[in-house]
Amino acid sequence: MLYLIGMGIHDPRDMSVKGLEIAKRCEEVFYERYTSPVSVEGLRELLGKEVKELKRKDVEESNLLIEKAKEKDVAFLVPGDPLVATTHQELVLRARKKGIKVKIIHSSSIVSAVCETGLHIYKFGRVTSIPKTREDFFPTSPYHILRENLERGLHTLFLIDPEISLEEAVGYLFEAEKKEKRGVVSEETKGVSLSLGEEPEIVYGKLRDLKGRGKPQSLIIPGELHFTEEEFLRWWEHGEEEKG
Amino acid sequence: MLYLIGMGIHDPRDMSVKGLEIAKRCEEVFYERYTSPVSVEGLRELLGKEVKELKRKDVEESNLLIEKAKEKDVAFLVPGDPLVATTHQELVLRARKKGIKVKIIHSSSIVSAVCETGLHIYKFGRVTSIPKTREDFFPTSPYHILRENLERGLHTLFLIDPEISLEEAVGYLFEAEKKEKRGVVSEETKGVSLSLGEEPEIVYGKLRDLKGRGKPQSLIIPGELHFTEEEFLRWWEHGEEEKG
Repeated sequence: MLYLIGMGIHDPRDMSVKGLEIAKRCEEVFYERYTSPVSVEGLRELLGKEVKELKRKDVEESNLLIEKAKEKDVAFLVPGDPLVATTHQELVLRARKKGIKVKIIHSSSIVSAVCETGLHIYKFGRVTSIPKTREDFFPTSPYHILRENLERGLHTLFLIDPEISLEEAVGYLFEAEKKEKRGVVSEETKGVSLSLGEEPEIVYGKLRDLKGRGKPQSLIIPGELHFTEEEFLRWWEHGEEEKG
Repeated sequence: MLYLIGMGIHDPRDMSVKGLEIAKRCEEVFYERYTSPVSVEGLRELLGKEVKELKRKDVEESNLLIEKAKEKDVAFLVPGDPLVATTHQELVLRARKKGIKVKIIHSSSIVSAVCETGLHIYKFGRVTSIPKTREDFFPTSPYHILRENLERGLHTLFLIDPEISLEEAVGYLFEAEKKEKRGVVSEETKGVSLSLGEEPEIVYGKLRDLKGRGKPQSLIIPGELHFTEEEFLRWWEHGEEEKG
C-alpha cells in the first residue's frame, strides 16, 4: 500500500494525527520538500524514525515508490494537501495501473487557508500562480485569469513561485499590464499578501506599498468586497506588527 | 487566547498534530459539529478530556467563547479548515474587537480534497452549494455559477446541504434547468460525486445514473477536461466497488 500523506502548510506538526499514526506504522517513509519549509530533522523527530528525501524527478521519472509499495506499506509525505499537485495525481494513476492500492491522507492547503485573510471562499475565482519569469519566458495567462475573475467580481489567489519575492510577484503584474494593456492592475490596485508560518503574516494595501517581511506564499487580488470582508481586511491594512 | 482548530474532513484524527497538542493544553475545549460526522465521544477519547458541544447559535449570537478566552486559553474545534465558514470569520472579528488574540490552526477541507477526484485545482471556477429547497425557496444562483464556470471551461464544486441526498442534489440541477432554460445541464451531463470518509466514495457518470451509497459531501460538474483528468475520472466511472 502507498500512503500519500499531506504535511500541511507550514511545519511537520501540520500533518494530521491520522497521517502521523500511519507514517509511524509504515515500513519506509519518504518525503518531498519541494516548495515547503518542512525540515527533514523536524520530520525525523516527530516520527521517531528515518525519513528519506525524494527529489521531484524521483517522483516523476522513477517508479521507486511504486516498486517499494508492491511489497510493503510505504508512506510518502508531501507538502500541503497531497493531490493539489498534479504530479502526485500522476503518481497515483501510475501506481493504480500497476495494481498498487493508494490511500490519500489529507491536510491543510493554502487553497482553503486563504480564508484566514477574511475573504470568503465562495467569492474566489480560478486559482493561478505567479511564475519566475525570464527574458524569453513571460507567460501572461495569470494576468488574464485575474482579468476574467475581476470581470465577474471575484477574488484571485496567486500562488507565488518560491524563488521570487513579493516585490517580484507584484512586478510581474505591473509588467504584464504594460504588455497586455487591458487596464487590470495599477499601482493603486489593492492586494493582500499572505504567508502562513508559525505566525501568519498578512498585509493588505496598495500593490505599490505592499512589503513582505518574509517570502509570502501567495498574493490575493480581491474582487468586489462584502462589508464583512472589508472590515476584516482593514485589520491587515498596516501589517500586524503595528497593532501591538 | 482563543484557538480555532480545524477538525478536517472526516473524523477527529484529521485534526493536525499541532491542533491536538494545543487542544490538550487548553483549559477549556468546545466543539461545533454542524455538518461534520465527528462524534463527541471520538473527540473526548482523542483529547483525553471534556469537550463541550456548541450549537451554531451559541457561536453566532453569544459571546461565550470570547468571554472565556479573556481569562484563559480556550480551544474551539470546528469541522474542516476553520475560516472557510464565514460564521467563524465573524467570530474572529468580534473577538479581535474585544482585544482577544485569536490563532487559527488549519486542517483539511473539501475545497482542496476535491483533487482526490483527479481534477486539477487550477481548473476549478467559483465554489457554490446546493441548498435544501422548499416550495417558496428555490435560489437559482448556484445554477448560474455553474453556467458561468462552464462558459469558461471550468469545473464547479457544489457543496451539498447535509440534509439532502445525492439524488435530491441532482434533482435541484434538473429543476433549475427547467426554470431557467439556459441549456446548462441535462440527464446526459456528467458529474462526480465525492464523499470522503474512512474510505473515499467517488463516482463519475451521467447525472441521471449517479447513485451514492452514503450522503456525498459534494458534487462536481467538470468543465473541459485535460487528458490526465479524463484518465483519472475513468477510474471512478463505475464506482470503486466494481474494481475488486
